[in-house]
Amino acid sequence: MFKPVMTAAVAVGCLAHVALAQEVAELDDTIEATAKALIEAARVDEVGLTFVEDLTTEVGQRLAGSEAEQRARDWSVAELNELGFDAVRVEAFDIPFWSRKSEAVAVLTPSPQELVATALGGSAATPKDGVSGPVVRFESLADLQSAPVSKVDGKIVFIDEYTIKTMDGSGYGMGVRKRSGCAKATSDKGGLACLIRSVGTQPHRMPHTGIMARDGAEGDGPVAAISGPDADQLTRLLARGPVTVSVNIQTEIKTNAPSGNVIAEVTGTDLRDEIVLLGCHLDSWDLGTGALDDGAGCGIVVGAAKLIAELPERPRRTIRVVLYGAEEVGLFGATAYAREHGDDLDKHVLASESDFGAGPIWRFQTRFGEAALPYARTIQNLLIPLGVTPGDNRARGGPDIGILARSGVPVVTPGQNGIDYFDYHHTPDDTFDKIDPDEFRQNVAVYAAFAYVATETGWDFRKQPEPETVGTE
Amino acid sequence: MFKPVMTAAVAVGCLAHVALAQEVAELDDTIEATAKALIEAARVDEVGLTFVEDLTTEVGQRLAGSEAEQRARDWSVAELNELGFDAVRVEAFDIPFWSRKSEAVAVLTPSPQELVATALGGSAATPKDGVSGPVVRFESLADLQSAPVSKVDGKIVFIDEYTIKTMDGSGYGMGVRKRSGCAKATSDKGGLACLIRSVGTQPHRMPHTGIMARDGAEGDGPVAAISGPDADQLTRLLARGPVTVSVNIQTEIKTNAPSGNVIAEVTGTDLRDEIVLLGCHLDSWDLGTGALDDGAGCGIVVGAAKLIAELPERPRRTIRVVLYGAEEVGLFGATAYAREHGDDLDKHVLASESDFGAGPIWRFQTRFGEAALPYARTIQNLLIPLGVTPGDNRARGGPDIGILARSGVPVVTPGQNGIDYFDYHHTPDDTFDKIDPDEFRQNVAVYAAFAYVATETGWDFRKQPEPETVGTE
Repeated sequence: MFKPVMTAAVAVGCLAHVALAQEVAELDDTIEATAKALIEAARVDEVGLTFVEDLTTEVGQRLAGSEAEQRARDWSVAELNELGFDAVRVEAFDIPFWSRKSEAVAVLTPSPQELVATALGGSAATPKDGVSGPVVRFESLADLQSAPVSKVDGKIVFIDEYTIKTMDGSGYGMGVRKRSGCAKATSDKGGLACLIRSVGTQPHRMPHTGIMARDGAEGDGPVAAISGPDADQLTRLLARGPVTVSVNIQTEIKTNAPSGNVIAEVTGTDLRDEIVLLGCHLDSWDLGTGALDDGAGCGIVVGAAKLIAELPERPRRTIRVVLYGAEEVGLFGATAYAREHGDDLDKHVLASESDFGAGPIWRFQTRFGEAALPYARTIQNLLIPLGVTPGDNRARGGPDIGILARSGVPVVTPGQNGIDYFDYHHTPDDTFDKIDPDEFRQNVAVYAAFAYVATETGWDFRKQPEPETVGTE
Repeated sequence: MFKPVMTAAVAVGCLAHVALAQEVAELDDTIEATAKALIEAARVDEVGLTFVEDLTTEVGQRLAGSEAEQRARDWSVAELNELGFDAVRVEAFDIPFWSRKSEAVAVLTPSPQELVATALGGSAATPKDGVSGPVVRFESLADLQSAPVSKVDGKIVFIDEYTIKTMDGSGYGMGVRKRSGCAKATSDKGGLACLIRSVGTQPHRMPHTGIMARDGAEGDGPVAAISGPDADQLTRLLARGPVTVSVNIQTEIKTNAPSGNVIAEVTGTDLRDEIVLLGCHLDSWDLGTGALDDGAGCGIVVGAAKLIAELPERPRRTIRVVLYGAEEVGLFGATAYAREHGDDLDKHVLASESDFGAGPIWRFQTRFGEAALPYARTIQNLLIPLGVTPGDNRARGGPDIGILARSGVPVVTPGQNGIDYFDYHHTPDDTFDKIDPDEFRQNVAVYAAFAYVATETGWDFRKQPEPETVGTE
């Protein structure tokens, strides 16, 4: 009879868990009505979309550490002041600077032809006249890493690994591994340069840049991405026989260049010391105008915060918008923020970052204290009319607020549908026309609603269950 | 009573016309069965698709007059001999040669940023350091042409005219007008350079090149296309205030460079002196690998001719495949062919060219003598299972056979669905992966079927109605 008893116990435990999983927190009627009004206002909002249109038009690309990123900070400070935000300021820091000057990749034999390539951020330069040699192809970074030195020495490595399209962007993680690891694995084995199949997911001749692993401004070797059709071409040529290619990458590097985080607030009232942080990053890669990555994120959080600022009453907690600098090249803004505000993290009651384009939000992921999960459910219920489903409680936060999440700051990750994101991300095609205004505004609605509820309720998103009382009978 | 009589007469005429419009020619059962067998064989054909895959991989781009176009001729001669074609040869000619060395277009003020641009074929070079000046925007070539000199003098012209996507490619004609006319209209009014919104129809930062009007190797002024998103960006900037840009185009030109038409035949039997010409062009623009324009066309006609060559019996008429050279830069191959074969045009019983990508054929256009229209209907009926509808009798032939059509050679234009053609055409994205194999094979089937019927029936596609007999009573 032992087994059935255990089963019953497990069943009771499960039921209790299910019951807990459904528990919601009660929301004040006025707060709920105001949150719904914010959602309606967001559906026709122009502030957020205009922010990203103007930023990407009037500044353009905003490579970290460049004069253009400086212009973006100046532009943002002026714009945020114009919009009536409080305490608009820049928290400055320095970064190592890398910029492409030129890149050229070409097949030399058996049939001379140029390949469309882009140097990865941090790529070492080649000698002025480039390098050339036979190509050795690997189907994955792992294959390169396990290859004998003799297979790589004196060669140009080509990693022909695909990126899988997924709604949640998980396919990108694998792509980033080859982007980070190829130069070092190549140079460790005497290879001359590395070419990777572009991490992007579109079928166009538009390769995807992004940072390689590096210390300082420059990494271990020359590394470039070739577009998908060019990777196909190289693979077809290699199937016919030996292929030699040339690679020429020229760069500009500096030890120190200026960057900074732009901060603006909607000052709260009775709980003004408590911060609801809404983040994005202001820098972009140099190829596009950084509309999706991450002009959109900045437009979304600025638009949402501005809607809250326009309510008849100021919010109880302070909403802090942080436009991080130098995210793309190593999360320098995130580190600087954590350094500057490290003594104050307990006052950060919630943080969220928009950095995955402008696709519609389809799930509401959190990382809350376990006893705060009913708050997540209540907020997600508010967002059902926007098409937002429940998410798990394992959110890691966006790239810039991951460091806060790891320090215990509760985070919300409104999960966007990113199925097409890597078609544009880090390519010349990351431009304003790729943003769907209605989908963008759905994002503004989600951010405005949850940020508002987080300020007005005073809920403690760190809340843990009470320790269980030990029975005395 | 006069009027009703006329009406009746017209009505009778119309009915007669309708009856004539439905008249079909009788097709020998064996010919019909063989044509249907060719269609079935084409559905799984590998020869045509392999031809374009190998050409675009093993040669790559094939700019007219370049060393690469020479390689393409050598490759084609070897391949066509390998496939067992008869009388494989090159008819050589010289052309003026133009090639891009570099192009750069950038906004200088109010916010420095690069625009993605491609020089048009035949563009004049700028001085080594480029030209720069304020931008003046026109919504069409017509607006530029009617503008006063004072509006253009010392400026950089920007024509922001869109290309409309259409199945039949008719939107492209308007695009070509601005491509041809901008440099001259600009330089005539003292403008420094012309930028046009790319003639391409895709939303990517991938501008579309193509030939400008010119005498000799170089045209009247510097002219480049900027991509759609870059045209949007420039327009947004201009809406905010004055914009200055820089344009730097460097070129390589030669008075004379080698080109040529590659010709191969399936020699006929009893009517061997009569030619059914199937054309395409071998040269391509330099940005892509010319897979759709016009590697596909060559693969289609080679594949179709090869299927006929593999029949147990040789065809009655000779099938002549012509891979024209230097089409893109001014139809030099077409002119050379007409010059070479001008005395022989009456022996050309039919001509057809595939030069509109690899989309499915949806209509069967002809230019036949009026009494030969029943032949067109009979052939089109054969193609109904392939999704081919009737077309009119106003076909102009493809670019290279237009000159034959104007000399009275009957032509067939199997109309492809080109709705997406200008998404790729003349851009870096014109690569092999853009060809849908099933759609490609449908093209092979259509060409094989009509060419076969044209050889075996001995039909006279020039046939005109008998002169009406004047009554004697």
